[in-house]
Amino acid sequence: MNRFDHKKYRPFPAVKIENRQWPDKTIDKAPTWCSVDLRDGNQALIDPMTVEQKKRLFSLLVKLGFKEIEVGFPAASQPDFDFVRALIDENMIPDDVTVQVLTQAREHLIDRTIEALQGVKKAIVHVYNSTSTVQREQVFCMEREQIVDIAVSGVRMVKERVCHHTDTEWRLEYSPESFTGTELDFAVEICNAVVQEWGPSQDNKIILNLPATVEMSTPNIFADQIEWFCGEIKHRDCIEISLHTHNDRGCAVAAAELGVMAGADRIEGTLMGNGERTGNMDIITMAMNLYSQGVDPQLDLSGAEEIVEVVEACTNIPVNPRHPYIGELVYTAFSGSHQDAIKKCLNRYDEGDHWNIAYLPIDPRDLGRSYEAVIRINSQSGKGGVAYILESEYGLVLPRWMQVEFAKKVQARTENESRELKSAEIWETFNQAYLDNPECATLVSYKLERSDKDYLTAVIRQNGQEQEISGEGNGAIHALTQALQAELGDAVEVNEYSEHALSSGSDAKAVTYIKAQVAGQPHYGVSVSEDTVAANLNAVLAAVSPVLAARATEAA
Amino acid sequence: MNRFDHKKYRPFPAVKIENRQWPDKTIDKAPTWCSVDLRDGNQALIDPMTVEQKKRLFSLLVKLGFKEIEVGFPAASQPDFDFVRALIDENMIPDDVTVQVLTQAREHLIDRTIEALQGVKKAIVHVYNSTSTVQREQVFCMEREQIVDIAVSGVRMVKERVCHHTDTEWRLEYSPESFTGTELDFAVEICNAVVQEWGPSQDNKIILNLPATVEMSTPNIFADQIEWFCGEIKHRDCIEISLHTHNDRGCAVAAAELGVMAGADRIEGTLMGNGERTGNMDIITMAMNLYSQGVDPQLDLSGAEEIVEVVEACTNIPVNPRHPYIGELVYTAFSGSHQDAIKKCLNRYDEGDHWNIAYLPIDPRDLGRSYEAVIRINSQSGKGGVAYILESEYGLVLPRWMQVEFAKKVQARTENESRELKSAEIWETFNQAYLDNPECATLVSYKLERSDKDYLTAVIRQNGQEQEISGEGNGAIHALTQALQAELGDAVEVNEYSEHALSSGSDAKAVTYIKAQVAGQPHYGVSVSEDTVAANLNAVLAAVSPVLAARATEAA
Repeated sequence: MNRFDHKKYRPFPAVKIENRQWPDKTIDKAPTWCSVDLRDGNQALIDPMTVEQKKRLFSLLVKLGFKEIEVGFPAASQPDFDFVRALIDENMIPDDVTVQVLTQAREHLIDRTIEALQGVKKAIVHVYNSTSTVQREQVFCMEREQIVDIAVSGVRMVKERVCHHTDTEWRLEYSPESFTGTELDFAVEICNAVVQEWGPSQDNKIILNLPATVEMSTPNIFADQIEWFCGEIKHRDCIEISLHTHNDRGCAVAAAELGVMAGADRIEGTLMGNGERTGNMDIITMAMNLYSQGVDPQLDLSGAEEIVEVVEACTNIPVNPRHPYIGELVYTAFSGSHQDAIKKCLNRYDEGDHWNIAYLPIDPRDLGRSYEAVIRINSQSGKGGVAYILESEYGLVLPRWMQVEFAKKVQARTENESRELKSAEIWETFNQAYLDNPECATLVSYKLERSDKDYLTAVIRQNGQEQEISGEGNGAIHALTQALQAELGDAVEVNEYSEHALSSGSDAKAVTYIKAQVAGQPHYGVSVSEDTVAANLNAVLAAVSPVLAARATEAA
Repeated sequence: MNRFDHKKYRPFPAVKIENRQWPDKTIDKAPTWCSVDLRDGNQALIDPMTVEQKKRLFSLLVKLGFKEIEVGFPAASQPDFDFVRALIDENMIPDDVTVQVLTQAREHLIDRTIEALQGVKKAIVHVYNSTSTVQREQVFCMEREQIVDIAVSGVRMVKERVCHHTDTEWRLEYSPESFTGTELDFAVEICNAVVQEWGPSQDNKIILNLPATVEMSTPNIFADQIEWFCGEIKHRDCIEISLHTHNDRGCAVAAAELGVMAGADRIEGTLMGNGERTGNMDIITMAMNLYSQGVDPQLDLSGAEEIVEVVEACTNIPVNPRHPYIGELVYTAFSGSHQDAIKKCLNRYDEGDHWNIAYLPIDPRDLGRSYEAVIRINSQSGKGGVAYILESEYGLVLPRWMQVEFAKKVQARTENESRELKSAEIWETFNQAYLDNPECATLVSYKLERSDKDYLTAVIRQNGQEQEISGEGNGAIHALTQALQAELGDAVEVNEYSEHALSSGSDAKAVTYIKAQVAGQPHYGVSVSEDTVAANLNAVLAAVSPVLAARATEAA
């Protein structure tokens, strides 16, 4: 039996909305962030965090700049209770950070929740109950008014209890859980009832959190839900609208972004999106999306490496190499044309410019990543990437004609070995081809005299044999080609020539790249030397070496 | 120096669009899918695929139902060329599948591309050049007209060559690469020029592919770009609009979905979103999103396990456990209230109903996953999940009061061991607590006589000691409690009682759950037996055993 049958599902109904505003909005300031890593994230782990892991993650969240952190569901789990107590008793909560705890709207759970929070400076009590059609009809078997009653009486119980603890600044958050599966008019009805019971003010706003407990529609429909809700709810000026999206359709970030455009003030999510099933909204991605548009994200994410390390250690879920902004591969280009474009743009970029680099939406250095890993070389790569590696890591600025030639050797090796080459292997390939070739002819000594022309006499060694050659020409290189031409009996001509200093200071070395033609065939040579002339001559000798060696073999 | 500075970035400009239509659209049929796993996906791997891996992935794509598959960039890489030849020479391409190959708009590359395709039945030649502002200004240093000329002359070259190979059905795809970074009017200008050069018809449409080569804005702005483009391009009826989104902002799926609402006909993407940097649009997620709304995705994704296996083997990138629809954890609920709701909804669900289960947007069985993994137990779990495991895997239907009692034992163990418990460990915990307790008193023999009352005489054994007890009451259980009460000198009362058959047929066993009160303290007992009466009596004995044992110790 093939169960794969779409007819078992029904489309999510559209929201009837008139004069929709959100598609014309842009986000020009960060929402209030609330991390739910320690509650929703923790709840969804195969092995929930230990108290030590929770403390480590809490410290990281504080360091990144979170001011609201949901730390657990203390009435439901002893470890959560103990953790909340540890935070308070060990004074781990900075004065500007508010901890938030979740509870169902039931008396003994609320009592236990308030008990867990004794002595805290600032707290958000987050009360929820399920409001969706499916939960009302199938799980609770209750009518709407009974569900409203659960919420309102829960809020009343919180209100009655917190007034006995005036040393704490209390706030209330209410979530109509499974909001996305709740009829919008009912969501507004139950939230209006909760707001009325709590009695918020413009100075002490209530938080209404609208969760996409399950992501059920395209993100534009979620935005429509939020815009509609914001338009209908009473006392909007005394309410902070919060969103808490999940990633069932892979669109949790989009839903949160469009939801903020539709009127939300606050976002709940987790680092890298850990959370039930497909996870929560990833705050790192949404914050960096804002950052990349010139908006202050109000979080300092410059230490990406530490974030990855702590989150992996606490969740035991490895970060995907393609995770936006922080995955291992996201600043890496393998394709030749991408590498080439990145290299050209980086060359033009000056510190202080607006960032405008092809294929790199943000500067990897902002997150503590370096350019070194940006360009990696495999059989899909071209000359640009290879040239970038040699330039950025080894200081060699290959001219274009040399890039083309050397890239062929690299591609041959990557194709042959069917794998990526590391920078050191690129360098090794370059050395084997040009600098450390044992068959290469080298200059033992030379005498160069200049009058009307340049007269060169040189002793060269190849494969253990030394010989003296001499020639004259315009400049040392020309004199050498003439000497080689005399030796070989074939036309020797230098077509391309490029030279640059390898380093600065008194021990500066020079590198020379040569393309020479011998009997119509192109040959390439590279040489590094402290002496510019020697570098030039050795590069020519390197290029012509294969022909010299072949001639010597014939003669032998 | 803190490099983390948002002021280095500029916001993406909004699209000036009037009378925007797409937010009112819904997607009611699947777009044409084109897999680019073997080209864009392969190009972004640390170690590109071998020919054998490519063949395996190609076969999977065909099996899933893809009709358009981009198989490589044959002019740029010898392995890609060889692979295209292997597909053709080994007749691996079904008649209803069109292969697509990428090429830059340069003569020698186009020649080599056409050479690679010799003898293929149907092919899409995909020509691209970069059109974005940053590429024109910083990489190519060219004016708009020169960029248009590259595209048009490339298309002309393809047109001139394909007319010599009339055995192949040729189609053209043109991509203004880095479309998202291209001024919209210029994108339309260059595409109009390409369309005019190619001369498509309603029967042989040209494909214009609009890539979010880099995702640069919220997905609604991308949709605005697409709607604007579709409204401005000439000969719209001869054009198939294709999208190719990347995931730099984590919104590639959302962008593709809103883009289809905005007018696109075709989607390029990869399985699980492999691709350059943050990856391509994930076709599995988008297709399953459609499926979950009752739309035929035109792909058969029922074999999720095979898909995961092949993709992991070919890309060497492990699937994230939270990956929508196919990650290991996405049908798993750890939270007690989620588990409880799932259990209640599943109990009401009948085969053939529309799917409507809290926290499970689709039926995991549709993708070849089972319910077994749906509910997992850790310290965040409640009675519902524990009960679900015992019922679905071991056939025990615990009454609510027994769920509450046993869940405490499970939670104590998960908290104590700080980890998830497997189903077998839940079962082990249950057994140790109730069924295999060596201290438990058991019935050796009994005699039950019924006249006006039930008269019971029973021999019981505990810790190697046998004793006879007797009592009378209304029914066997009552008679036993009376006997025990006489023995202990304390009030013994059964408060709750539940019994069900464990299996059907002649060897059917029964299980009995008892909550008994001894001297005001609750005690719980469970027993399984082939004989209902024995099951009942043993359950009562099991419940009272701790009191009997304590009394025996006192007496000794």
